[in-house]
Amino acid sequence: MEPLRYASGGEIRLLARSGGLTGPTPGLALGCVQANLVVVPHDLAFEFLLFCQRNPKPCPLLDVTEPGEAEPKFIAPGADVRTDLPCYRVFQDGQLVEEPTDIRRWWRDDLVAFLIGCSFTFENALLEASLPVRHLEMGCNVPMYRTNIPCRPTQAFHGNLVVSMRPMTPRQAVRAVQICGRFPRVHGAPIHLGDPAALGIADLSKPDFGDAVEVRPGEVPVFWACGVTPQAVAMESKPPLLITHKPGHMFVSDLHDTELEGE
Amino acid sequence: MEPLRYASGGEIRLLARSGGLTGPTPGLALGCVQANLVVVPHDLAFEFLLFCQRNPKPCPLLDVTEPGEAEPKFIAPGADVRTDLPCYRVFQDGQLVEEPTDIRRWWRDDLVAFLIGCSFTFENALLEASLPVRHLEMGCNVPMYRTNIPCRPTQAFHGNLVVSMRPMTPRQAVRAVQICGRFPRVHGAPIHLGDPAALGIADLSKPDFGDAVEVRPGEVPVFWACGVTPQAVAMESKPPLLITHKPGHMFVSDLHDTELEGE
Repeated sequence: MEPLRYASGGEIRLLARSGGLTGPTPGLALGCVQANLVVVPHDLAFEFLLFCQRNPKPCPLLDVTEPGEAEPKFIAPGADVRTDLPCYRVFQDGQLVEEPTDIRRWWRDDLVAFLIGCSFTFENALLEASLPVRHLEMGCNVPMYRTNIPCRPTQAFHGNLVVSMRPMTPRQAVRAVQICGRFPRVHGAPIHLGDPAALGIADLSKPDFGDAVEVRPGEVPVFWACGVTPQAVAMESKPPLLITHKPGHMFVSDLHDTELEGE
Repeated sequence: MEPLRYASGGEIRLLARSGGLTGPTPGLALGCVQANLVVVPHDLAFEFLLFCQRNPKPCPLLDVTEPGEAEPKFIAPGADVRTDLPCYRVFQDGQLVEEPTDIRRWWRDDLVAFLIGCSFTFENALLEASLPVRHLEMGCNVPMYRTNIPCRPTQAFHGNLVVSMRPMTPRQAVRAVQICGRFPRVHGAPIHLGDPAALGIADLSKPDFGDAVEVRPGEVPVFWACGVTPQAVAMESKPPLLITHKPGHMFVSDLHDTELEGE
């Protein structure tokens, strides 16, 4: 996989399209913005778009397709969300029914695809600033937790914020706030640091998604709004059809991390 | 009007609701965020929300109501967009049919209200930094121009960017970039400075909306994405019913300018 670290977004997508890549994407096409995928039928699209607009920290939208269109033309012209991710999850009425590597047979003229920013972008920026990203050091998935903080609801969608956590010293956390604040379209600055109980998290060693990581003496947990939130919320509403990427198996765009700096 | 300068957003809205305020709102409730209003039927709401998502510089959304709901509950709980603006414009099939001070008789269960950030917020920040805001000095409306820059279209909505212009010295312009960059939800940093022809603007002394202002020796024109853009675009699509605020007669929210700093 090492050579894919320096591949372009387009090369990763073509490899996934041809069936040559079915595994997770962290560390691939370094510097290219990766995105979460959520596909819903058109009759829920206004509500889901509204939910994202009301909750920009967990749901920073990078691109939204027209009904029936599979090309996210603003972040990856020529790409096809039906084939260009390594692996998908298909839900019917809230139940996981398949994990295909291609969703062409599920595609319909009324489906709308939402591409949502992902923390891999700011993790690259943290690493470049010599700040620790513990789950990368440990070679595992980032720990994610359900919180007791309700998202701003819409009529069809409601649920609590999901956060990701990275342990740091207070001094490193201050620097991370400054760095991530430059990337509002990939979750931006942390939403909390310190006491997990303030978010309703009972036990840091038992994340709801991903893997637990070590918090060392002198470190505090730092919490970011997480792109799993919109998926979890969409799933709770149990639409007849909902398609997402398989966690960790992201859409790799043509955008470069630096293009998301600032606004 | 002078005492209204220090009124709260809620006081301004109540005054408009009671018929005691039918004039323009610049300078009222100083420090409270004012917003553009666009109301469209639900069957166009997804498309209009998508247009705003794709064009965040001219269309920074502050709040969007549920279909049929008149309360923008996130920026002004208890407010009513049908009565709380001083004056409205009602368009049918693209034609201006009425300028009422109340739209209750036009309201329908399928209408969705969009509240869109407005430059008054960053103008306050410019004034506080002792930067010139020429149209305020001259006591006239800001000059606005149609450009040759297409917005990112959706199936239903397309059109070119409208910009507002404020003349400054290059040194002041640099400072304005820094200040306005802190306010991405009210149009953010300028999109251009210098040669108007680069935007397809033939004559600065003939704005398409608002009033011309003096550009003094040593000054360059500085251009910002303008909240008139989404109105102009919505109007071009000639929906059966479209309601906006009358220009300058804005919705005054409970948000304070400083709450829009950063993300």
